[in-house]
Amino acid sequence: MVKIQHDHIPKLDDYRKIVGKDVIDKLRESSEHLRDKHIVHINATAVGGGVAEILNTLVFLMNDLGIDTGWRILLGSHSFFKITKGIHNSLQGGKWSMTSNRKHVYMEYCKRNSIINHISDHDIVVIHDPQPLGMIEDYELKTHWLWRCHIDISHPNPDTMKFLLPYIRKYNGVILSHPKFKIKNMKKPQVIIHPSIDPLSTKNKNITKSKAKQMLSKRGIDTDKPIISQISRFDPWKNHFGVIRMYEKLRKEHKDCQLVLMGDMAADDPQGPMIYHKVQQKTEKIPDIHIITEKNDLLVNALQRQSSVIFQNSIKEGFALTVSESLWKGTPVIGTSAGGIPLQVIDGKTGYIINNEKEGVKRALNLLNDHSLRNKLGKQGKEHVRKNFLITRHLQDYVDLFSRIYPPSRL
Amino acid sequence: MVKIQHDHIPKLDDYRKIVGKDVIDKLRESSEHLRDKHIVHINATAVGGGVAEILNTLVFLMNDLGIDTGWRILLGSHSFFKITKGIHNSLQGGKWSMTSNRKHVYMEYCKRNSIINHISDHDIVVIHDPQPLGMIEDYELKTHWLWRCHIDISHPNPDTMKFLLPYIRKYNGVILSHPKFKIKNMKKPQVIIHPSIDPLSTKNKNITKSKAKQMLSKRGIDTDKPIISQISRFDPWKNHFGVIRMYEKLRKEHKDCQLVLMGDMAADDPQGPMIYHKVQQKTEKIPDIHIITEKNDLLVNALQRQSSVIFQNSIKEGFALTVSESLWKGTPVIGTSAGGIPLQVIDGKTGYIINNEKEGVKRALNLLNDHSLRNKLGKQGKEHVRKNFLITRHLQDYVDLFSRIYPPSRL
Repeated sequence: MVKIQHDHIPKLDDYRKIVGKDVIDKLRESSEHLRDKHIVHINATAVGGGVAEILNTLVFLMNDLGIDTGWRILLGSHSFFKITKGIHNSLQGGKWSMTSNRKHVYMEYCKRNSIINHISDHDIVVIHDPQPLGMIEDYELKTHWLWRCHIDISHPNPDTMKFLLPYIRKYNGVILSHPKFKIKNMKKPQVIIHPSIDPLSTKNKNITKSKAKQMLSKRGIDTDKPIISQISRFDPWKNHFGVIRMYEKLRKEHKDCQLVLMGDMAADDPQGPMIYHKVQQKTEKIPDIHIITEKNDLLVNALQRQSSVIFQNSIKEGFALTVSESLWKGTPVIGTSAGGIPLQVIDGKTGYIINNEKEGVKRALNLLNDHSLRNKLGKQGKEHVRKNFLITRHLQDYVDLFSRIYPPSRL
Repeated sequence: MVKIQHDHIPKLDDYRKIVGKDVIDKLRESSEHLRDKHIVHINATAVGGGVAEILNTLVFLMNDLGIDTGWRILLGSHSFFKITKGIHNSLQGGKWSMTSNRKHVYMEYCKRNSIINHISDHDIVVIHDPQPLGMIEDYELKTHWLWRCHIDISHPNPDTMKFLLPYIRKYNGVILSHPKFKIKNMKKPQVIIHPSIDPLSTKNKNITKSKAKQMLSKRGIDTDKPIISQISRFDPWKNHFGVIRMYEKLRKEHKDCQLVLMGDMAADDPQGPMIYHKVQQKTEKIPDIHIITEKNDLLVNALQRQSSVIFQNSIKEGFALTVSESLWKGTPVIGTSAGGIPLQVIDGKTGYIINNEKEGVKRALNLLNDHSLRNKLGKQGKEHVRKNFLITRHLQDYVDLFSRIYPPSRL
């Protein structure tokens, strides 16, 4: 028996002052009948990337609601994670081939995880992303299995999808981040749940302007010059090179600005160090560029707060929660229309959607030159996030979904 | 119910041809009464470092014996792992202070892991290393909890030990890698189990000389020149700088040799990138040095096979399994007397123990210049490992320990 004491572990009541009493009350009332249900989440990594961040709050808020919620981190070798990264990229449309050897290694590691995890007696199993997807193969399905896919699978590599589809179809349902990600010929329910950010996490909590400035100064960033930034993992889909090109053009018009590229490398992503190295080579001779790989959520917080403009120049995205993080700090975002970016960046209201780099340069210049425009978009962005992309809304969506599986008894 | 099918998952019978029938038969017979016991291992990381490697085989061999053995990976934030690295280093004697804030973060994350793992009904819980140590605080102890410590805690920082000791004492027993690591005033049983290597893993399995050479050539290493190497994580305790100094002196006597420093960075070790960076700066102007951070077990295998001499120049060590890995490939090792190195490097028989860098240079020169000496030590090293440091011996030690907790019924 675990003696749960919350301390600084996320508690629902802490969110009351941010989202209001009604939101919290509804969460408690609507989840009453789910008390003591036994749920388990399984994903690839405990640190790094949006999925881990969400689970780090969501799992504990579920426990706070009285739902007995476990969380397991996938076991995997380097070669396994290389393969799951290939699956990940090719589900987003990248070229890659699911060879029979790769299939074998993938399924063997799913089986290893099935052997060492004892999850057959849970009321609901939530499997996150493709890494642990195949684990379902090793279980006699006595309970409800949900596949929670966080990535854009609207135009998957057909071979990869052909390999995964038989496993996906064994699930009782699939959760996607956006309607356009829905799987064709799925034959099972597909539910849309947008991801979210935690306004009380180190990355998003309120910090003072002077604290933020001090942190940036310490890393050699001039806090008197405008800061343009992109915060995203070093990953081929984030198009860091496009941001660098836009910055080079911007500097011709607005000489005193600087670019910060900040991103960590997740434990399950062997491509990170390679992209990082290329970005460093590319930027060696360009002035006022700062590349930060420090894993430091408070520094991300400071950077998002102090930036004048933030780019999210992704080619493909699951959802791009960094956009909501930036908007939550009142900073407008210039983004592509990949994945969930347009749900967060309302063109002309919370930032700008761009179709090419020329537009990106133009919009960034506008924002750099117009303080009151930046402020207006910033305020609107924050309200947009409060309504739609905070963790409490996310939790309510899960409660509603679980209630479809285990409905409250009728009076 | 998990449908276990082994495929390439480690199976005991695969080891028969390496260790002999008797060893396997004894394992099966002596564990018969432990069938269906429910055991769980908890450690910090699934990939990177010796502990993860051991568990990747040991856990599956335990399942193959019929012991129902789970494995959980610890959840942690970056700040948590920074603290556990501080605990780790200071348990090895490093200066570090367990501030009240650090204590708080450490215990809070232990509690998070207690909330999301449901382990109170297991027959034996094995907690590995200091990271999950504090989890015991959150459980009513109905079953047997063992703390398996893999590091050298013979001269710990007193403050860190003072903080941890009340938790350690709650365990039913402690497992250490070496008698000299025993804890003073422990008041609970302390058992010695040496760690081990898996002779069938990618890192240790047999590969051809031509395959090994091809892999090294591809990384720019000249396979016609003698190779000196050190294979170890980028970590302050491995003394990479001492190896570099010895190499610089060696080159004055033996111009055609080259140095390879290969090491990955574990997910739980934020210090890795810093040390790596310093090593790179230091070696920029020294000829024929190769630094490899590629996570590639087959490449480690090739390098250990093709090296003429391998250094293990550690200041502190838990056990230094890289020594057994190298010896298993017939390559002599020159090591310090830190941790478990002298158990593996028998001076003059399987390699040399050195007390200073001058000795290291002298011994390396001897080995470089004397092919038949290298061969003789290499053969003796392999037999030493076969008898003492393979995973099957390790498994037997666990079976014997579990049998002390749950003895076979008397006839």
